[in-house]
Amino acid sequence: MTAFSETLTIRVYYEDTDHGGVVYYANYLKFMERARSEFLRLAGLELDSIDAEFNVLFAVTEANIRYHKPAVFNDLLTVESSITRLRGARISFRQRIYRQRDHILLTDADIHLACISRCGKVSRIPAPIEDRLKNHLNPS
Amino acid sequence: MTAFSETLTIRVYYEDTDHGGVVYYANYLKFMERARSEFLRLAGLELDSIDAEFNVLFAVTEANIRYHKPAVFNDLLTVESSITRLRGARISFRQRIYRQRDHILLTDADIHLACISRCGKVSRIPAPIEDRLKNHLNPS
Amino acid sequence: MTAFSETLTIRVYYEDTDHGGVVYYANYLKFMERARSEFLRLAGLELDSIDAEFNVLFAVTEANIRYHKPAVFNDLLTVESSITRLRGARISFRQRIYRQRDHILLTDADIHLACISRCGKVSRIPAPIEDRLKNHLNPS
Amino acid sequence: MTAFSETLTIRVYYEDTDHGGVVYYANYLKFMERARSEFLRLAGLELDSIDAEFNVLFAVTEANIRYHKPAVFNDLLTVESSITRLRGARISFRQRIYRQRDHILLTDADIHLACISRCGKVSRIPAPIEDRLKNHLNPS
Repeated sequence: MTAFSETLTIRVYYEDTDHGGVVYYANYLKFMERARSEFLRLAGLELDSIDAEFNVLFAVTEANIRYHKPAVFNDLLTVESSITRLRGARISFRQRIYRQRDHILLTDADIHLACISRCGKVSRIPAPIEDRLKNHLNPS
Repeated sequence: MTAFSETLTIRVYYEDTDHGGVVYYANYLKFMERARSEFLRLAGLELDSIDAEFNVLFAVTEANIRYHKPAVFNDLLTVESSITRLRGARISFRQRIYRQRDHILLTDADIHLACISRCGKVSRIPAPIEDRLKNHLNPS
Repeated sequence: MTAFSETLTIRVYYEDTDHGGVVYYANYLKFMERARSEFLRLAGLELDSIDAEFNVLFAVTEANIRYHKPAVFNDLLTVESSITRLRGARISFRQRIYRQRDHILLTDADIHLACISRCGKVSRIPAPIEDRLKNHLNPS
Repeated sequence: MTAFSETLTIRVYYEDTDHGGVVYYANYLKFMERARSEFLRLAGLELDSIDAEFNVLFAVTEANIRYHKPAVFNDLLTVESSITRLRGARISFRQRIYRQRDHILLTDADIHLACISRCGKVSRIPAPIEDRLKNHLNPS
């Protein structure tokens, strides 16, 4: 974790688990989306305001996720997020989920997003948003 | 089940279960919504067309659900739906979920909906929709 | 809210909403389960420990939920929970979800649970658990 | 699609969408899991029987998913699945989701799974399971 990463704590509830006794594989993507939302909030960007002001939203275009160890019910997790790339209409996040108890890495992912206008077209990230995000870029 | 009921078959997948080994309690409401959508489709009503043509949608205002026995992974379920009340802006459904293998009742619910206009106000069900639904009313 | 209620703050994320622009109706039950888990934790009860130590879990037997106004993306919600009844194998919760910004009541519910043993039978709440819960009973 | 692929039809319901008006990005992984379950069933393998008979389950170790175009409420989708690799404890699926109306590719993914024993260890796929899957291998 560096100065350019943000972390979010997430508790695992019943809703997140499956009958294998672990967190259902798609639900880690929910945790990661929550963490990206909080990352943007900490950068001064509220997603509902972005939508209202600039008529754009960020859509995931690619998600590459690796599952190392499972989270279980009642675990406390840390989601670490950083922006690894920012160019034109594109943002890439690297995200890692750790078990808080022993800081073991459970899951990590590269999530690629595109800025999309209301009519569904990929469009350059509005300059005021890009400026804020640049300060949180962590290309290493 | 009567001539005024419709049934939908649903398979229980991993996503539906929780670490207690059974279907997560909120997910039965998903199954019931799927069944209401199919009920309306069989009555000649497509929810996306209703939205586009009449600028209304149906919002749940109350759900009373009783859990008798749990469904488990890989179960085949039958969801039985009927309209028990239809008046003004209101529709009420009675829905029951059975395990297909032995036709044991697992869950049943009364779901009350209101017709809502685009601006969020409760508004009378448009006549063409009401006419179609009347033919599927099962007040008993 | 009284001294016998507990509150949990919940942020509405993308995962919680549906294409009607509001929180999907089944997801309020997820919020309420999170709040019950935190209520029990504050009462000194961890659900995974209860399972391991006493071989019981709490299953919802009935949920009666009323939807007054919708929550939307990015809302901060307060979930207020209190135990209204505690007897034998049964616990009843009253739960209310407010929008934090203006403290408007969005949803309220009565959720009834039963203590279930590993073999699936309803069984008296173990005395050490009942004792802790008694101190948090709010029958009014 | 080849002789070694299986297809599943999925309807998009309210539960699958988000307030952006499209299917929520994590939910495509649910659709893909449903399709893998049906693929295995068609190959003569029921996941609950595998668990009971061999004490193993299949856990996703990596998912690489590309989002080309969004699915929307009420869409009918076709999920096409084939096994691209099968060796030791590992299975890889290639899965594609098409919109049925115009057969446009919406999403495609490579999903890698490992056979896991009850105690959580990666373990060779039991021979009777491997034999059935071999007949459905599509390495191209």
